[in-house]
Amino acid sequence: MLQEASAVEEREISQAVIGRLPRYFRYLGVLKDEGIERVSSQELSDIMQVTASQIRQDLNHFGGFGQQGYGYNVEHLYEEIGRILGLDKEYNLIIIGAGHLGQALANYMNFERRGFIFKGIFDNNPAICGMKIRNIAVRPMEELETFMRENDIDIAVLTVPRDNAAAIAEQLASCGIKAIWNFAHVDLQLSKEIQVENVHLLDSLMKLSYNLASHSEDRS
Amino acid sequence: MLQEASAVEEREISQAVIGRLPRYFRYLGVLKDEGIERVSSQELSDIMQVTASQIRQDLNHFGGFGQQGYGYNVEHLYEEIGRILGLDKEYNLIIIGAGHLGQALANYMNFERRGFIFKGIFDNNPAICGMKIRNIAVRPMEELETFMRENDIDIAVLTVPRDNAAAIAEQLASCGIKAIWNFAHVDLQLSKEIQVENVHLLDSLMKLSYNLASHSEDRS
Repeated sequence: MLQEASAVEEREISQAVIGRLPRYFRYLGVLKDEGIERVSSQELSDIMQVTASQIRQDLNHFGGFGQQGYGYNVEHLYEEIGRILGLDKEYNLIIIGAGHLGQALANYMNFERRGFIFKGIFDNNPAICGMKIRNIAVRPMEELETFMRENDIDIAVLTVPRDNAAAIAEQLASCGIKAIWNFAHVDLQLSKEIQVENVHLLDSLMKLSYNLASHSEDRS
Repeated sequence: MLQEASAVEEREISQAVIGRLPRYFRYLGVLKDEGIERVSSQELSDIMQVTASQIRQDLNHFGGFGQQGYGYNVEHLYEEIGRILGLDKEYNLIIIGAGHLGQALANYMNFERRGFIFKGIFDNNPAICGMKIRNIAVRPMEELETFMRENDIDIAVLTVPRDNAAAIAEQLASCGIKAIWNFAHVDLQLSKEIQVENVHLLDSLMKLSYNLASHSEDRS
């Protein structure tokens, strides 16, 4: 019964709650590594600096993991959230754009550990095609379509200049990409079938700049 | 009068509104580059896929830029939001951690154009100290304190492994850093005087994974 209720609720969860799940997953992973078996919402609240009621509300979306007077079983909750996040699956991933950022992401091994398997990297600059990153050669964009078909690619990481991003996203869409992790500084307009997650680094830096500027004013 | 009201309101703006400002700034920049002089909240709504009432509400926090029947003057609004975001100032920035990500950020020239001036890069690995990135040599961590004092550093970009992040953040705090742009996969616990903006790449990838996994279920 609980399983069914949880399955129904999963479909109605807001992106705000989903956005908080990786953070729960991260903190629970630390507790698990420290050998801690159970945790109350109040203890989680203290270390995560979120209210206990927010934690209970968020986790209730996924059925009743907590038990009154016991709290949460750390390992169980960690694994359940991992499953909800889809981390029990493997995804094949390619990177489009072998510039500095593309190379940095290709070299970031932690993604692999979470089931995101780096399969290939592409660039339209002939000068860097053939260069190897973690033993995988940079391929020309002409090979994208064949490569995607033969390697069952799920996710494309887009690390290209903003002027090229829309056209390349269209090309990925026509090749049947399921998800795009977009680092180009532009919002992509694609079919809703394709999941897009944006990392706008400059937006984040501007937010820091705002807080820095307004905080300096407060002090002067 | 309007100026005064706007100054008062700036202090009460939620982080959610502030988080949306860079996106307004980005879209207005595109309109400006296209030579468009004015835009209505409805037109902005169409291209940004946000409701017109949300746009009016957000921009009202900063006083009355819009005029009924005219809309917004693109260049004026672009410049005002830039000023609010603190982009009329210059910030001196250092990067801690000269790994792939640190190097990628050091090479990203767009930050400079927005007033974030790359002054130095540090690493505790002697093997890469001395290596040059954009003509700036990687320095050992021992030189951090003197360098910060002599170069009036505002922002530190933290691109170190999570296990080192907390200790280095403390060190930056004791040297008087004003803001940290944190890429380490851990939340920093620092004095509220120090502005922190997190970019948790793995959290973002997990959110994509969730949407991919739950969308596949819908289709099956």
